[in-house]
Amino acid sequence: MTVLSLEAVPIPGIPEIEPAADLAGMVLDAAQRHSIRISAADVLVFAQKVVSKAEGRLRALEDVEPGDRALALASELDKDPRLVQVILDESSDVVRAERGVLITRTRQGHVCANAGVDGSNVPGELVSLLPEDSDESARRLRAEVGRRLGEAPAVVVSDSFGRPWRLGQTEVAIGCAGLSPLDDRRGLHDALGQELKATLPAIADQAASAAGLVRSKDGREGIVIVRGLQRFITGADGPGAAALVRAREDDLFK
Amino acid sequence: MTVLSLEAVPIPGIPEIEPAADLAGMVLDAAQRHSIRISAADVLVFAQKVVSKAEGRLRALEDVEPGDRALALASELDKDPRLVQVILDESSDVVRAERGVLITRTRQGHVCANAGVDGSNVPGELVSLLPEDSDESARRLRAEVGRRLGEAPAVVVSDSFGRPWRLGQTEVAIGCAGLSPLDDRRGLHDALGQELKATLPAIADQAASAAGLVRSKDGREGIVIVRGLQRFITGADGPGAAALVRAREDDLFK
Repeated sequence: MTVLSLEAVPIPGIPEIEPAADLAGMVLDAAQRHSIRISAADVLVFAQKVVSKAEGRLRALEDVEPGDRALALASELDKDPRLVQVILDESSDVVRAERGVLITRTRQGHVCANAGVDGSNVPGELVSLLPEDSDESARRLRAEVGRRLGEAPAVVVSDSFGRPWRLGQTEVAIGCAGLSPLDDRRGLHDALGQELKATLPAIADQAASAAGLVRSKDGREGIVIVRGLQRFITGADGPGAAALVRAREDDLFK
Repeated sequence: MTVLSLEAVPIPGIPEIEPAADLAGMVLDAAQRHSIRISAADVLVFAQKVVSKAEGRLRALEDVEPGDRALALASELDKDPRLVQVILDESSDVVRAERGVLITRTRQGHVCANAGVDGSNVPGELVSLLPEDSDESARRLRAEVGRRLGEAPAVVVSDSFGRPWRLGQTEVAIGCAGLSPLDDRRGLHDALGQELKATLPAIADQAASAAGLVRSKDGREGIVIVRGLQRFITGADGPGAAALVRAREDDLFK
């Protein structure tokens, strides 16, 4: 009997990321230096911050001119109006603005606090934005690693999202390539032969969470290799994390 | 340099669980048979279904007499009124009842579909309920395993919850003992020396998700050992998954 087991290992020694950094090269170098083998059976989970920095997805607050809506929201929420303007620029709509919390839907469809705009681990008055299209980032990273390695691991771009009824954040996949984002068990049968209804584990989100558990607190370990998910790995890039976004018309909590 | 890595291994060969089953004994037997070592540095993640069955938390739908509210909701949602009555019996309030979806707050405070009442992997017209107090279940399992093993691993009781804006389910901790449910990083500093604000990773939920990735589809592998979380393991049982429940007064999505 084969026991499937999962392993998540951070790739240490990734240098500070600058815009236009060669992330694929950095990962392969660091992995080689630490004798960490990467194969097509693995999932590379990149922290959003690492991808955003490499893609130059940063904005300087001193260059932002807040508009009327940003000024009003900022005063209501006691936030920096320039930050609120950046958040609005990244959002298609505001889901909640209450008690200091600004939850929006990003242009990619992800619902999260502050549209993922974040000032930690970026210097000074810079804030980092989510990648423009995190699925495209994942596909590009997968192709770049694959070209140099000779085989392409799956790639997840991960960010930490809060939850409406639970405290704390969990890592979720905002981008993915080469990994089934969802494991569609519907139509399958349980151990008693009854059909499994509506069971649809969010594989890519759980892979992001597993990776999140091994990151150091200071954000230096932004890339984690997850092994043991072979049965969810696909040759094609697949639908990406877009498949994890609930359609707006099905949202019961608008 | 020590690289922290995470490992999740399902414990195979757990027999079908009957009410009053000796879960702690079953885990230790199965682990020994498969040469899986369990120590105080490990987290044992039990699927809710396994714990519920062992605790006899099952109800037979044929014995349920639906009341007026259950009849009305059932007709609105196109559900079995007896099942709706069971869900209401397990809930403190209804959060959403729309488009065939019934989301409630359980008496323990967890917000989820159908109050966690579930008919899969239980025979016939039986449905399984969440444990009466999953934190107490976790503490009891931890103590029982600890007594026989001579050292007590941390214990998580896990269930799969949907998310309002994302498709698919992820495993979360509905009970926990001996593991910090949240890793409070607030007041710490990022790699650039700036204070990390509001970063509070939900360790127990992410441990449940990591374990979820190695379960087989048919529900036979209900217990998973997670290694590599030593820095979150505590001698005392701690606050449990109750600490993961956002207070009702802070809920922006009632």
